[in-house]
Amino acid sequence: MRILILGADGYLGWPTCLYFSQRGDEVIGVDNYFRRNAAVELDCESLIPAPDLFQRAEIWEDISDKKIKVHAGDITDYEFLLSIFREYNPDAVVHYAEQPSAPYSMINRDKAAFTLQNNLISTLNIIYAVKEVNPDCHIIKLGTMGEYGTPNIDIEEGWLDIEHKGRKDKFLFPRQAGSLYHTTKIQDTDMLWFYVRTWGIRVTDLMQGPVYGLSTEEADMDPQLMPSFHYDEIFGTVLNRFIVQAVAGYPLTVYGKGNQTRGFLNLKDTMQCVYLSAMQPAEQGQLRVFNQLTESFSVNQLAEKVKAIGDKMGYNVKIDHIENPRVEKEDHYYNVHYTGLAELGLEPHYLTDQVLEKFFEITSKYKDRINKDAFFKGIKWK
Amino acid sequence: MRILILGADGYLGWPTCLYFSQRGDEVIGVDNYFRRNAAVELDCESLIPAPDLFQRAEIWEDISDKKIKVHAGDITDYEFLLSIFREYNPDAVVHYAEQPSAPYSMINRDKAAFTLQNNLISTLNIIYAVKEVNPDCHIIKLGTMGEYGTPNIDIEEGWLDIEHKGRKDKFLFPRQAGSLYHTTKIQDTDMLWFYVRTWGIRVTDLMQGPVYGLSTEEADMDPQLMPSFHYDEIFGTVLNRFIVQAVAGYPLTVYGKGNQTRGFLNLKDTMQCVYLSAMQPAEQGQLRVFNQLTESFSVNQLAEKVKAIGDKMGYNVKIDHIENPRVEKEDHYYNVHYTGLAELGLEPHYLTDQVLEKFFEITSKYKDRINKDAFFKGIKWK
Repeated sequence: MRILILGADGYLGWPTCLYFSQRGDEVIGVDNYFRRNAAVELDCESLIPAPDLFQRAEIWEDISDKKIKVHAGDITDYEFLLSIFREYNPDAVVHYAEQPSAPYSMINRDKAAFTLQNNLISTLNIIYAVKEVNPDCHIIKLGTMGEYGTPNIDIEEGWLDIEHKGRKDKFLFPRQAGSLYHTTKIQDTDMLWFYVRTWGIRVTDLMQGPVYGLSTEEADMDPQLMPSFHYDEIFGTVLNRFIVQAVAGYPLTVYGKGNQTRGFLNLKDTMQCVYLSAMQPAEQGQLRVFNQLTESFSVNQLAEKVKAIGDKMGYNVKIDHIENPRVEKEDHYYNVHYTGLAELGLEPHYLTDQVLEKFFEITSKYKDRINKDAFFKGIKWK
Repeated sequence: MRILILGADGYLGWPTCLYFSQRGDEVIGVDNYFRRNAAVELDCESLIPAPDLFQRAEIWEDISDKKIKVHAGDITDYEFLLSIFREYNPDAVVHYAEQPSAPYSMINRDKAAFTLQNNLISTLNIIYAVKEVNPDCHIIKLGTMGEYGTPNIDIEEGWLDIEHKGRKDKFLFPRQAGSLYHTTKIQDTDMLWFYVRTWGIRVTDLMQGPVYGLSTEEADMDPQLMPSFHYDEIFGTVLNRFIVQAVAGYPLTVYGKGNQTRGFLNLKDTMQCVYLSAMQPAEQGQLRVFNQLTESFSVNQLAEKVKAIGDKMGYNVKIDHIENPRVEKEDHYYNVHYTGLAELGLEPHYLTDQVLEKFFEITSKYKDRINKDAFFKGIKWK
């Protein structure tokens, strides 16, 4: 298939390009380098040296003899996005091109406005480009489990059947997120759902939990193929941050009580989930929602796991409970249902001791590049 | 109280300025003249000649000896909005400053993007200005009954208690709207709800049905105080359009079967609802939602009412069922609950024969200004 990957330079974007390319698909990758630039501005650059998209495509071609076509550009510019759609007429488009950080969206008004505008206009533009160029093109949208927040009822897979005063209907599962960034993902879902109903486009919305890891089949071929990897307060997800903190001899920064529970998945499983979704697309007029996670952990459980393996490997890991900069429930019910991706064929890579050990090993090679100032900057929600 | 009215030049904005001013409140009105300019661009100008905001304020001062302070400016420009908040430090802000038309939002990508950006950035800016200048300032936000769509269950007032698998929680009532414009109102609600939970701001979100009418206590003092009034396909709400069509001898444009049912209210009641909400504000940390309507009618019922009165007044009204340009259910369940505003003291003005007769009388004075080309332009949802 011909697949367009937006946000191709990111932690998930580049591994996804490689994954599809390795399996014989024609890959077009686009990025505006927003995160790269923001990471310089905020002094929290990738742990792994990240060649730019053009260099990455060359490295990949040298190794695999496969071509990934890359373009630098901003998809909030509709004319640019339309030109890409017209040039390639993709069968599917993967939308990773959003401002992906909760703390970033809470820094100030300008960064909140940027997040809102970037995320919503990019999604709108994709919807319009699909309608204009090929209404059959399958949109694979990265949502987040954070859209649901932490409700006091079981989290179903995207939808909820409601019976009320003797009458029934089916609705999007209630959404109430914990940051402006997560709220823009809800707003994306609102918008996708409207255009799915109105225009009959086909959309898969992946409610993804925090991703961890560095190893993928392709990245393991050559260190130059590794993803960009953030471990800081702003762009780093929690387990990635803990591993790097442990390697750096910095106490793990657990926010508040640490009983906050979320669904997680291995980077390898993100690749699988997106690939399986692309190969078995949503129907026309369907907003297909999957909860994309393989296991649930509390922050404390993750910290304990990192400490156990880290200590065994000689790192002497300390855990610090710091004042929670976020506004979130620290004790809450959390029971998520996720069967859709398993039914498509997902074979999970769980967070075993071996996985953690390998994660430590890879990370330790980049120990000299760790910037401890990036671990905690204290971006407060209030 | 000192009240800031954003979108002060509009159909609801100007009457609201007058209503508060007449009752002794200090009113500051702001508008960027978006609708005025869009109506020129799309050849669908106000039926009533509308002086600009500065002229209107002068006319009002001549008549009432009361001052309304007015500013022309765009509240998506945060520095501008902040300067207004700093200058006046309002007790409450009424947010009418959104692109308010469903068809406008469906014309093309650029107008969809404008709607998205204008409506969400304006709401974000208000939230930030409130936080920065006075977190106690009460935000009164105009939402729409259209946020709910036409679910197969009773529409409750903003919220829904859900019991699921033996556990309970309370959520925003499910929302699924019928246009991109209406979807931006859902997105506004998502965003307001996030910041209410996180920052403890106080918000009243008014889920308003389509408004009709021209008469208010203040507008009745002098024709120069009348609101701008749109009767076209793009900016005109259905009953306003029907009245003007009847006066012009143009068949009433009923979309499809005409069984589409909505909640309506008189312009006078919008004034009351906003005023009552301002005088009895939401609590800090409360998103207070009211369903703002006084009666429900199907489009056919409205057409029949207009025909009955119009015929009696000698207009020989014809009703035309035209192909529905929208994507919407033409037969559906509709049962809305609305008690909150009545509890605050709302005294409804229902759609009586007398009200319709007076509406015909006022409208007929402007018969020569009717532009029949504006009644139907055929903006299709698909």
